[in-house]
Amino acid sequence: MKASKIGEIDFAKGNGLVPVVTQEARTGKVLMLAYANKEAVEATMKTKRATYWSRSRNELWIKGDTSGHVQKVRRVLVDCDNDTLLYMVDQVGPACHTGKHSCFFSKLDSEE
Amino acid sequence: MKASKIGEIDFAKGNGLVPVVTQEARTGKVLMLAYANKEAVEATMKTKRATYWSRSRNELWIKGDTSGHVQKVRRVLVDCDNDTLLYMVDQVGPACHTGKHSCFFSKLDSEE
Repeated sequence: MKASKIGEIDFAKGNGLVPVVTQEARTGKVLMLAYANKEAVEATMKTKRATYWSRSRNELWIKGDTSGHVQKVRRVLVDCDNDTLLYMVDQVGPACHTGKHSCFFSKLDSEE
Repeated sequence: MKASKIGEIDFAKGNGLVPVVTQEARTGKVLMLAYANKEAVEATMKTKRATYWSRSRNELWIKGDTSGHVQKVRRVLVDCDNDTLLYMVDQVGPACHTGKHSCFFSKLDSEE
């Protein structure tokens, strides 16, 4: 597998942020989508705890710091355009603030 | 499973676009991340072919229309904030323009 460096990630395109898809390593479930700046990615790589940038609170967001629902990061993948990340994690408790395991628990209806 | 309507999707937050995570239904692999506007989501629901909004070409992007590498959509999920979608698809050929099956083929190094 190709290896990428943090310096290669294109943060500029998203005004300093890249979207991060978070997938549960054990089940393959997509748990959530959040955003990370360079500081968050560096913290994630260093601590192996999924860290994001909270756009609503405008601060570094160490997932689970308040709830205890931490994400242990097994590996981080970068996409072909270097502008999206994929965190492969072991999820402790639910990932979603609603108490659901994944944030994707609603099915889109075909009808408007 | 909860059901959502297209009208409930929060396109405003992303200036008319929401990020879309695309996952292969059969394997659970995350294939790519792209963006959709309301028109793209409506086309996806109607045709069951994954449709996005190309930010580089600034036009509707019916995945595979040029390459033949179409994505048949089994279902579309909406996240808890109504601002991210998950397309569950059957992928024909590779999803990535590089010829790789998934766009996430590079591992982020811990070292800078």
